[in-house]
Amino acid sequence: MHTSSLESWNDGAAKRAIVAFVTSAATEESPGYVPPRDRVAVFDNDGTLWVEKPAPVQTAFVLEKLAARMKADPSLADAWPYRAVAARDESFLHALEVQDADAVTSMVQAIGAAWEGTTLDAYEAEAARYLASWRHERFGLPATGLVYQPMLELFDYLRAHGWRVFVCSGGGRDFMRVICEDTWGLPRENVIGSAPEFVWRDGEPVRRAALHGPVAIGPGKPEYVLARTGRLPRFAAGNDDVDVELLASARFALLVVHDDDVREYAYTEGAERARATAGREGWTTVSVKNDWKTVLKERSDGEEPE
Amino acid sequence: MHTSSLESWNDGAAKRAIVAFVTSAATEESPGYVPPRDRVAVFDNDGTLWVEKPAPVQTAFVLEKLAARMKADPSLADAWPYRAVAARDESFLHALEVQDADAVTSMVQAIGAAWEGTTLDAYEAEAARYLASWRHERFGLPATGLVYQPMLELFDYLRAHGWRVFVCSGGGRDFMRVICEDTWGLPRENVIGSAPEFVWRDGEPVRRAALHGPVAIGPGKPEYVLARTGRLPRFAAGNDDVDVELLASARFALLVVHDDDVREYAYTEGAERARATAGREGWTTVSVKNDWKTVLKERSDGEEPE
Repeated sequence: MHTSSLESWNDGAAKRAIVAFVTSAATEESPGYVPPRDRVAVFDNDGTLWVEKPAPVQTAFVLEKLAARMKADPSLADAWPYRAVAARDESFLHALEVQDADAVTSMVQAIGAAWEGTTLDAYEAEAARYLASWRHERFGLPATGLVYQPMLELFDYLRAHGWRVFVCSGGGRDFMRVICEDTWGLPRENVIGSAPEFVWRDGEPVRRAALHGPVAIGPGKPEYVLARTGRLPRFAAGNDDVDVELLASARFALLVVHDDDVREYAYTEGAERARATAGREGWTTVSVKNDWKTVLKERSDGEEPE
Repeated sequence: MHTSSLESWNDGAAKRAIVAFVTSAATEESPGYVPPRDRVAVFDNDGTLWVEKPAPVQTAFVLEKLAARMKADPSLADAWPYRAVAARDESFLHALEVQDADAVTSMVQAIGAAWEGTTLDAYEAEAARYLASWRHERFGLPATGLVYQPMLELFDYLRAHGWRVFVCSGGGRDFMRVICEDTWGLPRENVIGSAPEFVWRDGEPVRRAALHGPVAIGPGKPEYVLARTGRLPRFAAGNDDVDVELLASARFALLVVHDDDVREYAYTEGAERARATAGREGWTTVSVKNDWKTVLKERSDGEEPE
């Protein structure tokens, strides 16, 4: 299922642009040549590598955690952002969905407090348990089945041409590291992004409340790429407004456009600036509807979702 | 010169322990088996990968920078740690040499201020120029010629057995990234450690004064390894007291003991705790004098230093 031939891509403008760029980057005589050491490709995760509607699995994971904390300590329900979570405040959840900076900051603080003092092993076990039981409300699939098959093929295609592939997730590095090896075929060190500081207790790393670095959205994304790889990406893929800075920092920018409400979801909200910039800057856009033969990894037998 | 046969290692206890560990780690039926995803090897830099006496090249680089700043702004000479640098205060330079926490913190702040507002490109060009002109006062070699040949062979040997090799330097990530590809054969993303935050100005990353994370000494080392790789190292190498936490976090710990004042330097200061711990914990120690046939990369023709 995991091939390097881009076989889930229709032969359209997006695939042709990818192939032209990658081929040229690998050709020493070409003006588009990229020396091997500079072949850094970076992908956003939610909405770029897997389905993020109606909400990313990690958002569900966090909201369940906050709900459990409120149950254990009802006084929390008066504090922000617990109050909004408890009341299922639509405007707050919407602000979170479009990654509004204030909403994200308040959630980052709540997340920091919720897992403060948790060992990395315990956190990973908790994330793995959640992922094992969670199912997508429409597709009935586990989160790892919501990964876009064409993107896995793109990972392989890039690697076959000497690229190192990284995922930079605003949603949180350590959650993604639980699945990166089996689902993406990427080592943990290639997963970067928002993460807490750790302290050592009895030789074990324990989460602190504070983040180690910025939140990996907006300008935080290229900052993480630079910190991690020592370079800015030459190839980047994203899908919404918090990916604009990452995409702008790359030589080749790929923007996923969610326009397929049959096989996935169709939405523009939170991606208005990204799409306008793509038009202006000549970024390559991927229409889920037209560019992808197969969308979901678990549906790659051609089966249509209900 | 760069082989994978450990040919610069004498056939002593250190080499035998390394070969036994690495062979066992690669053998699925062995109790010492390490799954490929966990094969993370981490090396300290100064004194572990290259000569750090009489002072690491990066210390010289920083002191020259601070001197130039004082020349441009004489009022700085009243401020700490400039005052100590200007006076060539032996006790301060000594505290720095043994990586005393207060001395290191004051230098980190001075370094942050000295390069605040410098683009990454400009910083790298400055480091490259310095490295091109600097020569070791005793050996007359450039810094990259001070790299230990046996360690380059160990990199190759580990990689040939499926390990990913990282360097974690307290001295500063971005300085090392200037030389890592050509000198160590490591991509930039495998060099981790102390580094500043960046802001973006006109699409270019510019150094801020603040560090992005802790200083990569003591407990900061395993923290960086965890942040970058998602795991603690299974193999670690160091040489002094600020490497103890890194070494203690690994399954196999290698401590370089500097005991060869003919081909390198013999010293124990700053490594007392590391050596005591090595004895207690059964770490593998490497005697420069007895375990290495060749010491310096540039001397691997067998030529003796003057």
